[in-house]
This record gives sequence, C-alpha cells and structure tokens, in this order.
Amino acid sequence: MDGVLADVYSQFLKLEAQETGILRTKEETNGFIESEAFPFYEKHVHSSVFFRTAPLMDRSVEGLDYLNRKYEVIILSSATEFPQSLMEKELWLNEHYSFISWEQMIFCGRKDVVQGDIMIDDHPKNLNLFSGERIIFTQPHNINVEVPESKRVFNWDNIMDIL
Amino acid sequence: MDGVLADVYSQFLKLEAQETGILRTKEETNGFIESEAFPFYEKHVHSSVFFRTAPLMDRSVEGLDYLNRKYEVIILSSATEFPQSLMEKELWLNEHYSFISWEQMIFCGRKDVVQGDIMIDDHPKNLNLFSGERIIFTQPHNINVEVPESKRVFNWDNIMDIL
Repeated sequence: MDGVLADVYSQFLKLEAQETGILRTKEETNGFIESEAFPFYEKHVHSSVFFRTAPLMDRSVEGLDYLNRKYEVIILSSATEFPQSLMEKELWLNEHYSFISWEQMIFCGRKDVVQGDIMIDDHPKNLNLFSGERIIFTQPHNINVEVPESKRVFNWDNIMDIL
Repeated sequence: MDGVLADVYSQFLKLEAQETGILRTKEETNGFIESEAFPFYEKHVHSSVFFRTAPLMDRSVEGLDYLNRKYEVIILSSATEFPQSLMEKELWLNEHYSFISWEQMIFCGRKDVVQGDIMIDDHPKNLNLFSGERIIFTQPHNINVEVPESKRVFNWDNIMDIL
C-alpha cells in the first residue's frame, strides 16, 4: 500500500515543507528509508492524518482497477506498528479505490505468512521472503537495492504492461 | 481472536441483558451464529466499545503465553468488515496479552491467504480452507458442525494438552 498505492514520500516531503519552509525533491531522498530520510518521521507516522491524507501514486486508480478485473487482488499493508493508522488506511482505500472491498484488505505486522502468486511491493525485505513472482516498485529507498528474481517497475503503467 | 481469545458470546449476552433486562445463557444460543443469535448484533458490532471491552476467554492468557513460548504465534483476526474495530482489537490485545507484539498481529477480511502449520479457530469456514492442522474451538455457533480432519477443543486447557 505505502510506496505502491500511497505516495508516502510525497506526503513526508509536503509535511516537512510545512515545518521547515523547505521543499526537497524526492531525488534528494534517494537511498534512504523513510525513517532516515525524514527528520520528522516519528511525529508524522504517529499523527492521526498522515495515512488518511496521503496522496495517490500516479495512475494507481486505473492500474489497480485493471488488476482487480483480471486477478484476485489482496491489499496487504504493514500497519499494526501504528495502531491509529489501521482505520485511516481502510477509510483511505474506501475513498480512493471503492472497487476494493473489506474482504480484500489485510493489515499486518509482517508479510511472510501471506501467500499469493504475485507480490508488488516497494520493500525488498518483503519480496525476499515471498515465494511467488516478485515485482519491486521503485521508491527512493530501494533505488540501489537488487532483489533476486524480481522485475522492477517504475510506475503503474509498467505494471499494466507486464501483468 | 473472537471466539478463541475474546469471549464475544458473553459480551453479546451482557449487552443484550442491559437492553432487555433478560440475561440468557450461552446454551440458549447453541446452533446460531452471532448475527442470528443476537437481535442487537448490528448495533453492537458497530459500536466503538464492543471489541475493546470484550471479556477474555477463560485461561486464554496462560494458554496463549504457553503457545507463544513454544511456537511462532500469529493472531489472525477478521476485522476489516468493521473498520472501527481495528484499533480496538490491537489495543485489546496489547492490554491483555502484552507478550504479543504488533509483528504478530494480522487483521484481515478473509483468512485463506494466510499460511501456517496449525490454525485454532471457531469458524468452520476458516478451518475448511486451511491446509495445515485444524483445531476447532467450540463456540455455540459451531457446536453441531463437523469440520473434516480437525480436532475439537472446548477450552484453553484442552489446547495446552494437545499442543
């Protein structure tokens, strides 16, 4: 969800600019995970609006709708680390991707107990433990990371091209 | 979680008694799923306190602690049908089973995409789709239901005896 549907880097950068008056570019965060890239990380992820107001990844509505018509889609999101984010995330999905039902949502702590045929994720640690087809969605933190036996996509048009 | 850790039938019966003045016994609900057994079902499951204040299944703290020392335990709970229940459930787990971390929690719509070696559940529909060892935890709604290739337990002492 984060880093594939939700554009969390843009959200962090926007909130950082509100705090500091300085708007950095995504490129300036290349190579850093969120907690390293953003000095206000802890404050923002524990707020009650961070996930609820996250911007959408470009073309993700069309892309997810396309996948949802063709495949059995499950939205699997790491969320239990931030209990307040759970309902925020479900309401966010309901608002933006209304064709996804509650039956298709899983909010978890770790993703390795969930099975499937294809995983699209931005985190190499999740893909490395997945036994099906691995698709890494490029985000600043993974740009220099190699995930074995994976395909790399840069945007939702790439996903629609290969799936 | 519900019907194994959380004693939801007792919670429904207690709330029903507050509405009607009549306290029925669990036995009177035998053979009925919650939505059939309890006239105020919809009101209660959508409230903001139903799951947060649910009583514990007897001996579940000792039992889960025992399992948690011996096995890799995941708490898998159907929860996304009621978005407001998500944080309630996590806080409830934190309060009563503090040895369970957020990494061990999964809140889902359907359980068939989660894999494991052993599943303890009260719902035959979940166990029937599980490929590992199946343990059915007796609750009023499942008392007359046969789950193929399962062991039936009536309480947490039974679980500690067989696992």
